[in-house]
Amino acid sequence: MKKWIRGGTIVTAADTYQADVLIDGEQVVAIGKELHVEDAEVVDASGCYLLPGGIDPHTHLDMPFGGTVTSDDFFTGTKAAAFGGTTSVIDFCLTNKGESLHQAIATWHEKAKGKAVIDYGFHLMISDANDDVLRELESVVTAEGITSLKVFMAYKNVLMADDETLFKTLIRAKELGAMVQVHAENGDVLDYLIKQALEQGNTDPIYHAYTRPPEAEGEATGRAIALTALADAQLYVVHVSCADAVRRIAEAREKGWNVYGETCPQYLVLDISDLDRPDFEGAKYVWSPPLREKWNQDVLWSALKNGILQTVGSDHCPFNFAGQKELGRKDFTKIPNGGPIIEDRMTLLFSEGVRKGNISLNQFVDITSTKVAKLFGMFPQKGTIAVGSDADIVLFDPTVKRTISVETHHMNVDYNPFEGMEVYGEVVSVLSRGSFVVRNKEYVGHAGAGKFVKRSKFSRP
Amino acid sequence: MKKWIRGGTIVTAADTYQADVLIDGEQVVAIGKELHVEDAEVVDASGCYLLPGGIDPHTHLDMPFGGTVTSDDFFTGTKAAAFGGTTSVIDFCLTNKGESLHQAIATWHEKAKGKAVIDYGFHLMISDANDDVLRELESVVTAEGITSLKVFMAYKNVLMADDETLFKTLIRAKELGAMVQVHAENGDVLDYLIKQALEQGNTDPIYHAYTRPPEAEGEATGRAIALTALADAQLYVVHVSCADAVRRIAEAREKGWNVYGETCPQYLVLDISDLDRPDFEGAKYVWSPPLREKWNQDVLWSALKNGILQTVGSDHCPFNFAGQKELGRKDFTKIPNGGPIIEDRMTLLFSEGVRKGNISLNQFVDITSTKVAKLFGMFPQKGTIAVGSDADIVLFDPTVKRTISVETHHMNVDYNPFEGMEVYGEVVSVLSRGSFVVRNKEYVGHAGAGKFVKRSKFSRP
Amino acid sequence: MKKWIRGGTIVTAADTYQADVLIDGEQVVAIGKELHVEDAEVVDASGCYLLPGGIDPHTHLDMPFGGTVTSDDFFTGTKAAAFGGTTSVIDFCLTNKGESLHQAIATWHEKAKGKAVIDYGFHLMISDANDDVLRELESVVTAEGITSLKVFMAYKNVLMADDETLFKTLIRAKELGAMVQVHAENGDVLDYLIKQALEQGNTDPIYHAYTRPPEAEGEATGRAIALTALADAQLYVVHVSCADAVRRIAEAREKGWNVYGETCPQYLVLDISDLDRPDFEGAKYVWSPPLREKWNQDVLWSALKNGILQTVGSDHCPFNFAGQKELGRKDFTKIPNGGPIIEDRMTLLFSEGVRKGNISLNQFVDITSTKVAKLFGMFPQKGTIAVGSDADIVLFDPTVKRTISVETHHMNVDYNPFEGMEVYGEVVSVLSRGSFVVRNKEYVGHAGAGKFVKRSKFSRP
Amino acid sequence: MKKWIRGGTIVTAADTYQADVLIDGEQVVAIGKELHVEDAEVVDASGCYLLPGGIDPHTHLDMPFGGTVTSDDFFTGTKAAAFGGTTSVIDFCLTNKGESLHQAIATWHEKAKGKAVIDYGFHLMISDANDDVLRELESVVTAEGITSLKVFMAYKNVLMADDETLFKTLIRAKELGAMVQVHAENGDVLDYLIKQALEQGNTDPIYHAYTRPPEAEGEATGRAIALTALADAQLYVVHVSCADAVRRIAEAREKGWNVYGETCPQYLVLDISDLDRPDFEGAKYVWSPPLREKWNQDVLWSALKNGILQTVGSDHCPFNFAGQKELGRKDFTKIPNGGPIIEDRMTLLFSEGVRKGNISLNQFVDITSTKVAKLFGMFPQKGTIAVGSDADIVLFDPTVKRTISVETHHMNVDYNPFEGMEVYGEVVSVLSRGSFVVRNKEYVGHAGAGKFVKRSKFSRP
Repeated sequence: MKKWIRGGTIVTAADTYQADVLIDGEQVVAIGKELHVEDAEVVDASGCYLLPGGIDPHTHLDMPFGGTVTSDDFFTGTKAAAFGGTTSVIDFCLTNKGESLHQAIATWHEKAKGKAVIDYGFHLMISDANDDVLRELESVVTAEGITSLKVFMAYKNVLMADDETLFKTLIRAKELGAMVQVHAENGDVLDYLIKQALEQGNTDPIYHAYTRPPEAEGEATGRAIALTALADAQLYVVHVSCADAVRRIAEAREKGWNVYGETCPQYLVLDISDLDRPDFEGAKYVWSPPLREKWNQDVLWSALKNGILQTVGSDHCPFNFAGQKELGRKDFTKIPNGGPIIEDRMTLLFSEGVRKGNISLNQFVDITSTKVAKLFGMFPQKGTIAVGSDADIVLFDPTVKRTISVETHHMNVDYNPFEGMEVYGEVVSVLSRGSFVVRNKEYVGHAGAGKFVKRSKFSRP
Repeated sequence: MKKWIRGGTIVTAADTYQADVLIDGEQVVAIGKELHVEDAEVVDASGCYLLPGGIDPHTHLDMPFGGTVTSDDFFTGTKAAAFGGTTSVIDFCLTNKGESLHQAIATWHEKAKGKAVIDYGFHLMISDANDDVLRELESVVTAEGITSLKVFMAYKNVLMADDETLFKTLIRAKELGAMVQVHAENGDVLDYLIKQALEQGNTDPIYHAYTRPPEAEGEATGRAIALTALADAQLYVVHVSCADAVRRIAEAREKGWNVYGETCPQYLVLDISDLDRPDFEGAKYVWSPPLREKWNQDVLWSALKNGILQTVGSDHCPFNFAGQKELGRKDFTKIPNGGPIIEDRMTLLFSEGVRKGNISLNQFVDITSTKVAKLFGMFPQKGTIAVGSDADIVLFDPTVKRTISVETHHMNVDYNPFEGMEVYGEVVSVLSRGSFVVRNKEYVGHAGAGKFVKRSKFSRP
Repeated sequence: MKKWIRGGTIVTAADTYQADVLIDGEQVVAIGKELHVEDAEVVDASGCYLLPGGIDPHTHLDMPFGGTVTSDDFFTGTKAAAFGGTTSVIDFCLTNKGESLHQAIATWHEKAKGKAVIDYGFHLMISDANDDVLRELESVVTAEGITSLKVFMAYKNVLMADDETLFKTLIRAKELGAMVQVHAENGDVLDYLIKQALEQGNTDPIYHAYTRPPEAEGEATGRAIALTALADAQLYVVHVSCADAVRRIAEAREKGWNVYGETCPQYLVLDISDLDRPDFEGAKYVWSPPLREKWNQDVLWSALKNGILQTVGSDHCPFNFAGQKELGRKDFTKIPNGGPIIEDRMTLLFSEGVRKGNISLNQFVDITSTKVAKLFGMFPQKGTIAVGSDADIVLFDPTVKRTISVETHHMNVDYNPFEGMEVYGEVVSVLSRGSFVVRNKEYVGHAGAGKFVKRSKFSRP
Repeated sequence: MKKWIRGGTIVTAADTYQADVLIDGEQVVAIGKELHVEDAEVVDASGCYLLPGGIDPHTHLDMPFGGTVTSDDFFTGTKAAAFGGTTSVIDFCLTNKGESLHQAIATWHEKAKGKAVIDYGFHLMISDANDDVLRELESVVTAEGITSLKVFMAYKNVLMADDETLFKTLIRAKELGAMVQVHAENGDVLDYLIKQALEQGNTDPIYHAYTRPPEAEGEATGRAIALTALADAQLYVVHVSCADAVRRIAEAREKGWNVYGETCPQYLVLDISDLDRPDFEGAKYVWSPPLREKWNQDVLWSALKNGILQTVGSDHCPFNFAGQKELGRKDFTKIPNGGPIIEDRMTLLFSEGVRKGNISLNQFVDITSTKVAKLFGMFPQKGTIAVGSDADIVLFDPTVKRTISVETHHMNVDYNPFEGMEVYGEVVSVLSRGSFVVRNKEYVGHAGAGKFVKRSKFSRP
C-alpha cells in the first residue's frame, strides 16, 4: 500500500517547503499540496521536518583492529544509525596483503548479509597498488559498484601506503572514475614520536595527541593534494581535524581542483582536553587524528559554512571501555582508536550547527546526506527527497530537547563520548525505501532488510 | 485552468529528475510521476529541461549614464530577458544627492510600471550615508522590500562613495539585514590613470583597460572585505573580473565570512584583446571593470566550480554603437560603459560552462537562479521548482546549436558583443507565475504583467 | 688629534671581529690589528662592542600635536638619544596646507638649529599632492636632501590624505627616487568607531585600542602596497604593530616588490593590557597604532628575524603625564598619542632581541642602524664602521644589567613606559663624527654640534 | 712578506668603500686609507672590486654517478673555481650503506688531498639514519667539523631516504647544531612518471623535465619544511628551481622558521626549452630538478632580491658530452644529471643580477659568499674582507665584457652550457689565505695548497 506523509516540512539541500509526500513501493512518486490519493496509509508528520535519510560516509562495523573487533556489527550498528536518522552507511572494507580485492569484498559482504537494517555500500582500502590490484580495480569499480578507494598515509607497518601506492591509486582512480580517500597523517613522523614517547615512559592517553601533531596532518593533506593535482584525479580527505589541513584544502579548492574534505562531530564538539580526563577516561576520546586544541573548532565550522569542507562523517569505530579501551591502560598505543558516533552524528550537527547558527538547515541536509550521495555515486537514488528517489525519509522534530546518554543510545558499546550533553532535535520515524525502520521512536525494522548499493562513478557535483 | 507540464526533466540546484509539474494559478502545486490531474492544460516538455526561471541579479534598465540612457527600458529589456530564460531581474535604482531614498525608489517604480513583462526587484544605490539616509533605510528594507544596497568604490566625483560611507552602510546593513554590494575598483587610482592617459593623448578604447588595472580591483575588493569583517556584515562583490579579486574573496570565505562574489559572462568568454578591435569596434567591449588578460578566465571558472564565486549576473547596460558608443570616438572616457547581455547570460553559461565541463548542470541552476534568490531574499518564492514556489519555469532544449546574433536577439540595441558565436541550448518556452511569456519561441507576454518583488532580509544560505 | 680606539669588538651588519679603529678628524681612516699610530689619543674599549651609532628613523621632536607640543626639543631629545647609543635621527617635518614645502622645511631647520647634539635629517609630510607640491618636490629631494615623504592614511580631517594623494606621491617618488612612508590605518573606519565609542560614553584609554582594530591597519597596509605596486615605487610602512600588517608586507616581499616595514620597541615588549592600567596610567601607553594583543609580539619578532620587517624605529613622541597626557582624562581622544622611547630603543632591542635569541647581534646592528641608513640614503656616511665612514661609534657594554627608570633617563618627560624593566647592555661612550658626545656615561657634547644630513635618493639595498 | 693591496673598492655583504688592505701571512691585518706599511709587496687593484672569495656551497667533484664519474676532480675543479672567483667549495661526501660515516669521510679526504688548490669543506649525505649513524654523527659534527647533512627525497632506490630518515636526521641535527640540506623532489612520483614515460617510448631529454614536474618539487619542499618545524631544526633547501618551492619557503620564513633556500645560475638563466635543443644537445641541460618554464626565473630573482632565497650554489656536477652525456642517447634516464658551473657561477650572478638590476652589489657578495659562510659555519674565517679573516680576496673588474666558452673555460669538460653568452665582469686575480692562486688571469696556484675547513655548528645569522 502507498504511504502518504502529510503535514511535514520537506527539507532538501536546496529547498525548504511544506508539502505532502506520496510513496509507492520503495520510491517517492509525488510531492504536492493537493495530491489526490486513494488507498494510501496516511502518516502524520505535523511539526516535523522531512529529511532525506542521512548517509554516513565513514563507518567501521565489525572491523578487526589491534587484536580486537569494533563492538557494533552490521545489525547493531545500522540499527543505531537508523535511530539517529541515518538510512545508509558506507563502510570501509579492509584488504589484506596477498588476498585479492574480491576476496576482501566477499568477506565484507558476508559481514553485512542478513544483518544490515538500512542500505549500505563499501569503500575499499588499497594498501598495495601492484599490477594485480590495479587490474582487479576495473571490475571492482565497474561491476561491483565500489567506487571509492581508501589509502592510509598513517599507521606505519600496518595500514600505511607509500606515496607510490597513493599516486598509482590516484592515476588508476582517474581512469576508472573512482574517488580516492586518504587518512592524512604522516606515518613516519608519528611512528617516531610514538616510539620516543614510550621510551620516555609517557604512556597516558594524552600522549596519543602529543604524538600526532596537527602539522603531521597538514603535511600529509598537502601531499595527497599535490599528488591528486599531478594525477588530475579526485580526492576526499577523511576526518579533517585541524586548521593546518583545512588551509591546504582551501588552497586546492581555490585552484579549482577536485578536492573535498570531511570532518566529524567529535572534532567540532570535543577537544584535546578530553584526553586528559582522569581515571583513564581519556581513553574514550582516542581518535586518529586526535582531538585538537579547541580553537580549531571555529576553523572547522567556518570551513563547513563556506564550503571548504563538504561533509560530516561519523568515523564510527566503537570499542567498549571495559575490555577494549582498557587494553591501553599502561600504554596509550594499545588503546583501540575510535569511538561510537553513528547514532548521534546528525543530531549533533543539527543542534550545534543549525541551532547555533553555524550552518543553515539546507546545508545541514547537504552535509549529512546530499553531498555524500553526490560525491560517492549514490545520487539521486539516495540523498534527496524527490520524485523517483528512494523513499529514505526521516521525520525529525527539531524542537525536542534531550540528553545524550549511554542509558538511552542504541549502539552496542558501554559509554557515550557525549554523555550528558543536551541537544535539540529528535528522530521520530525513519523510512528506508518506503518501509519504516523506526516508527514513533520504536524499532520496527528487520535485520537483512538493508541492501548493498552499487555506486556510480565519480561525477563532479 | 491548471497547467500540467509533462515529460520534462526537472533540474534544481540540488536535483535532476524526470517528473511532471502541476501548476495551479501562479504556483506549483504538485510534482510527480503519477499525478492524477483533471481539467488541466497539458504542456509537452519532452526533451526539455525544466529550469527554475533565471534571476538576473544585475541589470541597468532605462538608466541615465554620462548624458545618455541605456537603450533597453523595462519593456524591451525584460522581454529580451524572458527570451533568454530569465524570469526575474533585480535592477539598480540610482539615487541623487539631495533626493530622499523614497523619491529615488518612486522614480524607479515609475520606470518599471506598465512595462515589465517579468517580475523585478530593486537594489538601491547609497552614495551618501548621512543620518537621514540611514534612518530612511529602515523602511526601505523593512517596508519596501528593498534589501540590498549598492556602494560604488569607483567613478570618482560621480558615483563613488568614500570608506566612511561604505562602512556606515555595512554597519546599518548588519542591523537591518540588508546585503551590501560593491563595485570594487579604487576610484582614486583610476581617476589619476585616466587623466594621465588623456594628457598623453591616449584616447583609444584599449586605454579603458590600461587605466583600470586589475590591482585596483583587487585592492578595492580586499578593502570592502576588511570593512565587512569589521562590521560583521554581509557583502556581495559585483562583476568580479580578475584573479586579484578572486584571491581576496577566497581568503574571506576561508575565514567563514559572509562574503560572496558575482562574475559575468563577458569576463568568462571575452578578454582584453577585444578592446583592441579595429574601427572603434573595441568600444563595444567597454565594461567596468574592463575585460582582462585571457588567463583570468580559468581563474573565474575555477572559482565558480568550487564555490568561491556564487553567481553570474549580466550587468546588462546596453548602449547602441551608433550614437551612443560613438560618443567616445575621440576620448575613451566618453564611451558609455556596458553592454547588452541580459538575453544571452543563461545560454552562455550553459554552453561554455555545462557543455564544456566547467560546471555541473545543478551548479548552472544554482548560479543563474537559486543562489541569487537566496542571497537576495527571493527564495523560495523564486529560484526553484518546488511545491509552493512561483511557477517561473523555463523549458530549455539543451541540444539545439545556434548562433548568437544581433539579427535574432530581442534586445533593443544595434550590436551583440557575442556576434557569430555558436552556442548550445535554446529557450523554448517560459512561464512567469504560471503564465506563458514565451511559448514555442514566440512572445506571448504582456507589458506590465511583471510584478515588483518585495524581498526578505538577508539570511545565510 | 687622531683617536685610536683599542681593544673593542667591532660589530657591523655583516661582521663581528676584534680590531682597533683609527679616527682622523670626523672619519674612520683605518681598522686593524697592528696599526702603527703615532700622535693619537688612545681610547680603551676593552670589553665593549664598537657599534655603528644607532639611527632612529622615526622621531617627533618639538612637534605640535593636538594643542600641545612634544616635550623633547632637538636638544633634550638628541641628548637622550645619544645616551641611548643613537647618533642620528630622522625627524618628521610637518607641513601645513597653504604653506610651501620649503617654508615647512625652514621651520624645521629652525627647530634643530643650535640645539641638536647629534646629526639629523628630515622626512617630509605630504598632505596635499597638488601641482605646486609635486613641482616643489624636485628641489626638496634633489637639492635639500630630503628624500623620504610621509603620507598619513589616518587622522581624518587632520593629517589624513586620500588615495589620490598617496598615489600621486608614490608616482612622483618613483620619478625622483624618494622613499614613501605611510602611517597605515584606515582613517575613515577609525573616525567612525571613535565617534561611536564617545557617543556610548566609552572614554577610558582602553577605547583607544578598541577603536583602532588591527584589521584597519592590515587593510591600509595592503592598500598602500597595492598602490605602490601600481606605481612601481618604494614603500616603507612605519610602526607596524600587528600580524595583519605583517601578512601584507610578507606577501609584497615574496613578489619582490620594494616594500619595507618598521616596528617599534613598544609593540615588541608591551601589549594592549597596558592600556587598562588603573588610575589613568593607561594614558602613558597610548600609541597609534595602539598596543595589540600579546600574541602579535611573536609575529613581529619572527618578521624581524627573517627579514619581513627591516627596522625598529622609536616613534619617539613624548608628552608628560602631568598636564599633557592628562588632557584626556575624560576623553581618550584628547590624550596626546605617543611616548618617550628615543633613549631606550637600542637597549630594549639588544636585551629583548639579542640576549633572548630572537635576533642575532649583526641583525641588531642592521635593524637599528645599517638598514636605516641604506633605506634612507645615509649610507655609507652613516650606518657602519668602515674606512671612510663617519666616526659615529658607540662603545656598548653588553654585560651590564640595569633598570630602566624615569629617575635615570635623560628624556624631558615625567615617566618612562618601561619603568622598572631590567635590561642588559649599557652605552658607555658615544662618538659623533669623531667627537665624544657621551664619555664614560657623562654628557660631553654641545648643543648645535649636530649637523643636518642631506640624504641620497633611494637605491635598493 | 706582507701584501698591500692598494686602490681597490672593498665590497662586503654590508659595505662598499675604497680602502687599502694589508695582509700579513694568511689573514687581513689592516684596512685603511692611510696605512703606514713597510716591507710589503704592493698589489695594484685600481679599477677593481675587492670581493670576499666566493664560497660555492654545492659541488660534486670526483663523484661517481650512474656508472660514471664527474669529469672534474679536486684539482681541475677547484682550479676552475678559482678562475671564477671562488676560493672555497663545500663538496658533497657520499655515503654507502654498510659503511661507517667515517669511512665515507676518509674516502672524500683522500679525493681532495694533494689536489685542491683552494680551501674546501664537506657536506655529508645521510641515507640511513640508524642508531650507529646517529651516534657517529656526534663526532662528525663536533670533531670532524662537518656540520651539514644532506638528505635526498628523490632518486628512489638509489639515494632517496624516507621521511623517517629525514625526521631523525632533523632531530639529531637540532641536538648537534648541524644544518640539514634536502634535495626536494618527491621520488615516488618521479619514479612512476619516469617508468611510464619509458614504457611509452618517450626517451628524449625533454622527458627528463616532463617526468619531474614542479609540483613534485613544491610538495617535497613543503614536506621537508613541515618536518623541520616539528623538529624545531634548521633546513637548507638546495637547488630551488621553481615558484612552487619558493612559495613554501616564503611561508616558512614568514613564520620565522629557520628555513633557507639556494638556487643555481642555471635556473636563473636557462629554461625548459633548452632541453629541447636538437641533435641531443638537450642532454647538456639535464639537471635535477630540471630547468623550468621561463616565467619561474622572475620568481627566483624576486626571491633572491627580497631574501626568500639566500644563496646561489653551482651544483657543479660536470660530465663530458662525449662518452658521458651520450650514455643517454636512447634513454634520457641514462643521461648523467648535472653540468659544469663552478667557474661561471659568480660572473653569471654579477652580470645577470647586479648589472641588470635584479640584486644589489652587496647582495651579490652576500649570496655568493657571506651568507654561505654564515649558514655553514665558516664565518668569519671565510665570507668577508675584515681584519682577522682569511685573506681570500678576489680582484674583480666589473667593466670587462666577455663571452663564456668552452674554448676559454678551465673546467675539465667538453662543453659549456652558457656557450656564447656575453657577460660583464672578469676575475683578474685571486688570493687564497694571502697567496695568489690566480694572478693577472694566470694560474699561479699549487695542487694541495687548499686546506680542509672544519666548520662550526649552526648559528642563526
